[in-house]
Parts: sequence; structure tokens; C-alpha cells
Amino acid sequence: MELDHLFLLEALKEAKKAFKLGEVPIGAIIVKDRKIISRAFNRKEFLQDPTAHAELLAIKEASRKLNSWRLNGCTLYSTVEPCIMCCGVIIQSRIDRLVYSVPDPKFGGIESLYTIFKDKKVNHRLEVKKIYIKEAEELLKEFFKALRERCRSLA
Amino acid sequence: MELDHLFLLEALKEAKKAFKLGEVPIGAIIVKDRKIISRAFNRKEFLQDPTAHAELLAIKEASRKLNSWRLNGCTLYSTVEPCIMCCGVIIQSRIDRLVYSVPDPKFGGIESLYTIFKDKKVNHRLEVKKIYIKEAEELLKEFFKALRERCRSLA
Repeated sequence: MELDHLFLLEALKEAKKAFKLGEVPIGAIIVKDRKIISRAFNRKEFLQDPTAHAELLAIKEASRKLNSWRLNGCTLYSTVEPCIMCCGVIIQSRIDRLVYSVPDPKFGGIESLYTIFKDKKVNHRLEVKKIYIKEAEELLKEFFKALRERCRSLA
Repeated sequence: MELDHLFLLEALKEAKKAFKLGEVPIGAIIVKDRKIISRAFNRKEFLQDPTAHAELLAIKEASRKLNSWRLNGCTLYSTVEPCIMCCGVIIQSRIDRLVYSVPDPKFGGIESLYTIFKDKKVNHRLEVKKIYIKEAEELLKEFFKALRERCRSLA
């Protein structure tokens, strides 16, 4: 199995932690020089923080570790297509590689709502790679199915 | 002077704090029920945190105060057009009003790079108002002029 796939499976481990805690199951890690320097999962509900997406938290933690807002040479692995906010953080942090798995038709900024990193007007170039991992998508489907059922039982 | 203008001048006070500390001079406040519930200025360099834009920090602080990621009923005042990241945080936090002053041709997501809140594909509607404040723009110009001169003297 290629290295990018293995690292994406590490991000999936984070997504599973989110699932267990009742958060939308999305996980992310940051890798530099083949080492994982930060790991995070979505904690929006637990923290009641609209910025607490897995990708943003992983980027913040990587910056803290490296003591730099510039994350050149880093790769972000995310189980889901980053939203507009997280694409913005990628721009701000100058991350130069992104590997993700499942598209997000409602919020995604890479291929769904926008194609931010293909647009010439955006002042940051990024290598983007997509590796589909069935389990990452199934985890999301299971989460939203359970959520719909809970909503229905409360209605 | 109308209330929105007065609140924008409060955001300008924050921008001036950033200027004094050598940060790009951008300030933001959040208002709910005519009361300021959070204030912040850009602290990207000081914190070495790529997410530490004035708008994002103000939103995080408002969520902390209200103990909710949902900021319905809140207005964000920013001295500058929010970037893609900060537009994303506005979406995530469901803020329903934005008042800003100076356009940002390099990073702005409202009227410059994108028109995020006019795009039907984006799942959040927002009232956007623009009030030009000369001092907010002059503060930025002065900051970037000094930065260029410093860079030139180091070259």
C-alpha cells in the first residue's frame, strides 16, 4: 500500500474517534518529512466552536509544534474534502500538499462548491490528490443515518 | 452617525491595536442585541497561528461567551473584506449579518476573489453591508508602505 494511503488511514482513525463521541466523523493529520506532526478530529459540538473542524485543528496544532504559521513542506490528510473555511486555512498556512478521500457536495471547496485550488485568482498553489477509502464514506453514511433516525424519533 | 458605522469604528480601534504590534491592521467585533460580545485583532504573527485573523478570533470568542457554535442573531463587523477562510467561518457559525469596510483584492471572499454570499450553491444566506471608512484603508496603506520600506532596507 502506498504511503499516502497509509497516512489517510491514520486520518481515518481520527474520524472514528469523532464518531464515537457523536461528532460528524471527519479526521485529519499533518505529515512533514514522513512523520505525523499533528492529528485531530472534528470537535465542533463538544467544543461548541464553529472553527473546530478536523483539518483546522490539525493545522493549528502543527503550527504550534513548529512554532510557525508557515507549513511549507507539510501534507494535510483529510478523510473528507475540506470545506471553504478549511481551504482558506490551507491558503493561510501555505500547506503545499493535500490528500483527501470523500467529496462533500454541501460544503467542499476543492471539487464540489468551488475549485479553489484550480482557480488562478487564488494566490496559492497546492498539489491535490484524491484516494477513495470506502470505510471513510461508510462511516459518514452510518453517522447521518443514525442522526436522521434520532431526529425522526424526536419529531 | 448610524449604529453600524459606530460599531465599525469599534472594530477600527481593534485594527489600531494590531498596527501597534506590527500585525496587519485588521480588527473585528461581534454584536448581538446591540451589545458588543467580542472584540479581536489580527494576531497571526504574534501567535504564529495561520487561523488568527481578527474575524475568526472574534467569532471563536463570541461562541465561547454564548457557549454555542451557532451565532444566529449576531453581526460581524470587520475593517476589511473577510478572506475565504473567514467567509467559511461565517458559514460555519451561521452569523446572519456582516458589515465591512475595505475590499481585499488578494484574499477577499465577498466581492474580490469570490462572491461567496451571492452564490446560490452556498448553503447560508447573509445580509452584507459595506461602509467605507477612510481611516481603515489608510491604516492598511501605512502598514504596507512601512513593510515595503523595511524589506527594501534589508535587501
